[in-house]
Amino acid sequence: MTAYPISDLDAHWRAANYLAVGQIYLMDNPLLVEPLRPEHIKPRLLGHWGTSPGLNLVHTHLNHAIKERSLDALCVWGPGHGGPAVLANSWLEGTYTETYPGITRDAAGMGTLFRQFSFPGGVPSHVAPETPGSIHEGGELGYALSHAYGAAFDHPGLLVACVIGDGEAETGPLAASWHANKFLDPVHDGAVLPILHLNGYKIANPTVLSRIPESDLDDLLRGYGHEPLYVTGSDPALVHQAMARALEHALDRIALIQREARTGGADPGREYPRWPMIVLRTPKGWTGPATVDGEPVEGTWRAHQVPLAGVRENPEHLRQLEDWLRSYRPEELFDADGRPIAQVLARVPEGDRRLGAVPYANGGRLLRPLPMPALDAHAVPVDKPGSTLHEPTRVLGHFLTRIMHDTAERRDFRVVGPDETASNRLDDLYEATGKAWQGITEVTDRNLSRHGRVMEILSEHVCQGWLEGYLLTGRHGLFSTYEAFAHIVDSMVGQHIKWLKTSRELSWRAPIASLNYLLTSHVWRQDNNGFSHQDPGFVDHVLNKSPEVVRVYLPPDANTLLAVADHALRSRDQVNVIVAGKQPCFDWLPMDEARTHVTRGAGVWEWAGTDRGTREPDVVLACAGDVPTMEVLAAAALLREHLPSLAVRVVNVVDIARLMPHEEHPHGMTDTEYDALFTTDRPVIFAYHGYPWLIHRLAYRRTGHPNLHVRGYKESGTTTTPFDMVVRNDMDRYRLVMDVIDRVPGLAGRAEGLRQAMADQRLRHHDWIREHGTDLPEIAGWAWPY
Amino acid sequence: MTAYPISDLDAHWRAANYLAVGQIYLMDNPLLVEPLRPEHIKPRLLGHWGTSPGLNLVHTHLNHAIKERSLDALCVWGPGHGGPAVLANSWLEGTYTETYPGITRDAAGMGTLFRQFSFPGGVPSHVAPETPGSIHEGGELGYALSHAYGAAFDHPGLLVACVIGDGEAETGPLAASWHANKFLDPVHDGAVLPILHLNGYKIANPTVLSRIPESDLDDLLRGYGHEPLYVTGSDPALVHQAMARALEHALDRIALIQREARTGGADPGREYPRWPMIVLRTPKGWTGPATVDGEPVEGTWRAHQVPLAGVRENPEHLRQLEDWLRSYRPEELFDADGRPIAQVLARVPEGDRRLGAVPYANGGRLLRPLPMPALDAHAVPVDKPGSTLHEPTRVLGHFLTRIMHDTAERRDFRVVGPDETASNRLDDLYEATGKAWQGITEVTDRNLSRHGRVMEILSEHVCQGWLEGYLLTGRHGLFSTYEAFAHIVDSMVGQHIKWLKTSRELSWRAPIASLNYLLTSHVWRQDNNGFSHQDPGFVDHVLNKSPEVVRVYLPPDANTLLAVADHALRSRDQVNVIVAGKQPCFDWLPMDEARTHVTRGAGVWEWAGTDRGTREPDVVLACAGDVPTMEVLAAAALLREHLPSLAVRVVNVVDIARLMPHEEHPHGMTDTEYDALFTTDRPVIFAYHGYPWLIHRLAYRRTGHPNLHVRGYKESGTTTTPFDMVVRNDMDRYRLVMDVIDRVPGLAGRAEGLRQAMADQRLRHHDWIREHGTDLPEIAGWAWPY
Repeated sequence: MTAYPISDLDAHWRAANYLAVGQIYLMDNPLLVEPLRPEHIKPRLLGHWGTSPGLNLVHTHLNHAIKERSLDALCVWGPGHGGPAVLANSWLEGTYTETYPGITRDAAGMGTLFRQFSFPGGVPSHVAPETPGSIHEGGELGYALSHAYGAAFDHPGLLVACVIGDGEAETGPLAASWHANKFLDPVHDGAVLPILHLNGYKIANPTVLSRIPESDLDDLLRGYGHEPLYVTGSDPALVHQAMARALEHALDRIALIQREARTGGADPGREYPRWPMIVLRTPKGWTGPATVDGEPVEGTWRAHQVPLAGVRENPEHLRQLEDWLRSYRPEELFDADGRPIAQVLARVPEGDRRLGAVPYANGGRLLRPLPMPALDAHAVPVDKPGSTLHEPTRVLGHFLTRIMHDTAERRDFRVVGPDETASNRLDDLYEATGKAWQGITEVTDRNLSRHGRVMEILSEHVCQGWLEGYLLTGRHGLFSTYEAFAHIVDSMVGQHIKWLKTSRELSWRAPIASLNYLLTSHVWRQDNNGFSHQDPGFVDHVLNKSPEVVRVYLPPDANTLLAVADHALRSRDQVNVIVAGKQPCFDWLPMDEARTHVTRGAGVWEWAGTDRGTREPDVVLACAGDVPTMEVLAAAALLREHLPSLAVRVVNVVDIARLMPHEEHPHGMTDTEYDALFTTDRPVIFAYHGYPWLIHRLAYRRTGHPNLHVRGYKESGTTTTPFDMVVRNDMDRYRLVMDVIDRVPGLAGRAEGLRQAMADQRLRHHDWIREHGTDLPEIAGWAWPY
Repeated sequence: MTAYPISDLDAHWRAANYLAVGQIYLMDNPLLVEPLRPEHIKPRLLGHWGTSPGLNLVHTHLNHAIKERSLDALCVWGPGHGGPAVLANSWLEGTYTETYPGITRDAAGMGTLFRQFSFPGGVPSHVAPETPGSIHEGGELGYALSHAYGAAFDHPGLLVACVIGDGEAETGPLAASWHANKFLDPVHDGAVLPILHLNGYKIANPTVLSRIPESDLDDLLRGYGHEPLYVTGSDPALVHQAMARALEHALDRIALIQREARTGGADPGREYPRWPMIVLRTPKGWTGPATVDGEPVEGTWRAHQVPLAGVRENPEHLRQLEDWLRSYRPEELFDADGRPIAQVLARVPEGDRRLGAVPYANGGRLLRPLPMPALDAHAVPVDKPGSTLHEPTRVLGHFLTRIMHDTAERRDFRVVGPDETASNRLDDLYEATGKAWQGITEVTDRNLSRHGRVMEILSEHVCQGWLEGYLLTGRHGLFSTYEAFAHIVDSMVGQHIKWLKTSRELSWRAPIASLNYLLTSHVWRQDNNGFSHQDPGFVDHVLNKSPEVVRVYLPPDANTLLAVADHALRSRDQVNVIVAGKQPCFDWLPMDEARTHVTRGAGVWEWAGTDRGTREPDVVLACAGDVPTMEVLAAAALLREHLPSLAVRVVNVVDIARLMPHEEHPHGMTDTEYDALFTTDRPVIFAYHGYPWLIHRLAYRRTGHPNLHVRGYKESGTTTTPFDMVVRNDMDRYRLVMDVIDRVPGLAGRAEGLRQAMADQRLRHHDWIREHGTDLPEIAGWAWPY
């Protein structure tokens, strides 16, 4: 049996535990040079002790393994609300001081480290962007394992350890992520080592996985395809021994799997490798107070946050805290100046191998710009607006395929989606790469590949987690999904936006590639599914979040979609939401105009209007989104035909944040710009892709806002025809013409006949579809007539 | 071995398959009395064939078992996009005709059944509220199993079968739901029988669970705690035999488990029972075309939707369709009038035992009003506004505890939450019931109970699914959760709102109890967690949805929270979102005033203002939410002290939809009402709990909107003090006073000194908290001074 340096490891672990407790409690006397007094204690005790000793144990042993084997390793701390543990380790290994030079690795720095924790003006209580070495906020649970896999993809030399709390293990996103091992390529990807930390409790309850029979747990983990290794106990000496042995075994297994896969040449077989994992079963709040006020604390849920709550007021608590801190024997761990002694640091790796310094956790440092194809080579020719049709996402698919081709060697671009890549018309990608798949294959399968870079699993959560992990470690990607089901990741994208917002304020964090969504199969064309698949509200959700991070684009045709995608894939530290249809859509703009239009974000389509560039049209018809654009143009054509003297201006908005005030969003228009487009006093009929009130929420401060009338989706839908969808929601061309007649002063009288004709057309359509099941021929066959 | 009536079952199955195909394709000639011609075919072919034969098989065999054993059973159809299957069965058993008398059980009715499917003016392509016997929309995946458990809780006589597609099994929410068996009480709850349907493919990919080694799958399902029974094959005769046998075995096991638990008296042991489940492995699109245009279809992903896509245009496809339909030998299944023959119906149960008629699936039929306690008995006494403090959710907890007590025998009320019931201060509930738990227990455990009705699992998805299933089958409940993490169920609540919206339009669906959310641990008081736990946007999300269903309440104190909860628990067919704090909060209103205030939804707090009931105050200070209310009152007090001649009106809004136009929401105020509260021309400074632009989006049509200035959360936060949170987001009392000075005409000059004093206070606060880590004493100790 290998001899492990247990006493060195234990010294490091005790030091980390000491520092974790210190952060939760102390604002002075960090080295306990004098007896603890109430004024040394923070007035507000905040933080999570329960998970910290376990995280410290993992960090200590990872340190050793990294140093021993010269590993490139990253750790995702699922229970990252145990911020004190990860901060303690970062300070011990020196990366904290390198990142924040004010917090030195000595008594003064230790004092500041303690004081700043969960203190106003200090650092958050969780692992957060501010934490060196982290790619994962510890606050919201469920995403640790998918983040870990995302980090490992296309990093063949990287080991990604991932601590999963048994609370987090109850969440859906985490439960789904176990199967990510069927998507990990042992040749081109790194390894993921899940460490399931069964400390038995959540905030107030036992955890499910800690309270099922051991045989069920073992079956479950084997059922996930893993080889589980168990480390169980509460005696530190024995647990150190077991943990070191388990880690050694696991890393040997990983090395063997990778060697076989990478040297075998041939297909490694019909099944994914059985990767090892560790089950670490230690007490919650281990080494903390066993009992407080007569109630058991260590090993129960009561250890979750602050085990001793009344330290300032209660002398017995104060005494217990001092005993607890001294139990780590700080005098043996830190010298008189508060510096960690050599033994504490003996098994800490050096330089970029330290977990707080690894460049993979500051992915922007590794990021290379994508090789962007020439847009013109992928554009669709447009001689005359609205005379040809293309499926926009298919055109985008060609473009993405080129990027996929051109990154074949670099392997730093992936497309993820929940089983919808082909449905979303991006299937040309399979010319350049396959769909990642390590499961059993059948002869009838198509486009599956052990080395593919299209990722498909029917879990939006896992897709999002994978892509976040991939981007955070310095690569590029796109998430394509049905518009309605983007809401499944509302909470995840909210966290990612918060991460990016904070990261942007940290000069040491290099910018990473943006998270790009392609939302398609959208609300207006859910022919096959109906009401349950109609929800355009993801845009509303992200627009509530930090404006410096969020961009929303609604390209009206194939070429504008290309220009938007080009822009999004070059951008950094943003979340770009692109809403675009997959159904055949009219081509409105040639590529050069599309590029200009996207750069401006919104503009007048002079060819579509009849205001001849006057400064004062009678009415503005505005549109955002592919279907609204078609309906607005159809309405403009009807007006030109029937009311040729009416000066109609058509405005298309691609970049929806342009509508916001300049002061509130970096893309917002100035009032001068806005007024020049929309006028200050003319009626504006705005056909918008989503919920109509979003436009009001963005534009309410504009001078012309009282004249703004918005049409959009208002939760009316079922399985029906495309045109019936716009009629049901009062966004159809006939309705828009009626709106113009109703709102342009003086027109109601003049155009009464036209208004009636429009209403009749709506009724005719209603009767026709119920008889024939299809849209009226003049609708289905409509094209821009000018 | 039992002899099963295989030929009867097969006849029923073939009939259902025939009817499923007919719905996808035919608009005429339903009985194939003449050769198929293109004009018999629908012009738009929509629907999902792939899963339909499997669903039909399950339905056929459930029918038999129900009839044989006189079971009360419900089935949750996870792959409910296979709408044609469930509709076919409903028509066969007669419930469809009873529900929709126009669609008779004969040739004419069959023709209409076919034509209406996915046809404008007809029925959606999925299982939906319109489908008799359903409690589960088939469109969005992930919630089948948690719905099934929710339906089974407290229905001891009910069997809930649940078909889980192998695509759905990849989702997070479904993956988490497997562990729901640790929460099912074999004494007071019914049984759930999961049927995992491995048909091998999603839209375009193989499924994970169908492509792992059989031993891994078996380990996995045993790891979940189940006894898996396998039914595998493609020969109908053999599969019928195996399915009947598996179902018989499973139902015998279930009966045994229940008998032992219910007669044993003593604790059944330390472990949950090993409930059976069925793995049904049959080809996707089974019995459909084996190949189309030379490509394999049956048994591949190509069978997912419409296997033959060109039937109208392609004579070969038309021929294949006719062969396919005739392969079921319809002439043996239906008589000349199109009525199912006796053999087809031989194993169909009768009356309310039919799956389409079971009252559990129309839960409003079973619903009894809750025994509502007297509010006054739970109210906090308020002699003078703002002189006492209570934790509002704790006061609510007393009230809920009474209900929990009073439903001890009826068992039709549950409270669900992700491990936060105690954290959210509702732990008095444990006086009335325990936390449901069938896992291993330890001596240190508290409040766990095999028969408890508080449900805690660290999965918002499972909590939501449980509660939806519970409500949809005729019971009551409340979901308490951290405000920020309500976004985890954004997508689920969207589907539930759509379900309710549609149900309300169906006269045969009896109203069910509303889904009530208590969002607490809210954005302003995330002292322990910080930025990642700050998101008040769930309200924005639900307010995008159908106004007839959605209600949002922001009670400002304990008594208003009681009044809101009382109202919500009495309401029907709604989603009520209640946002309330758990931290000590001033008591503003005595119970009778609270009740009146909640009924009105918004009102002037005359005691807090200085406008003395004039019709023309100088400024309106409006507030919604507990923390904004405190800041507004503190600002009002400052103004009264420093600018005693200023006429300040204080308006509090509890029911946020009151701000919407009367035409857009049933709770919306008329313009007259709104103007009477807010004036048409005075500055309104509105402190709102969430994102400030929500108020603009609700009120943009009001006359006084240009004068409306809203403060709220704008994504500025970290781990800090409560008052620092409001300062960071410019919603603090000092800022509000400055806003008043800036916006009341003529005040700027008069009150320059006050404005400067307010700015100074903000700076003083900033410095103080960085020094002391706590809020300024005059903030922490503030109370309403009048």
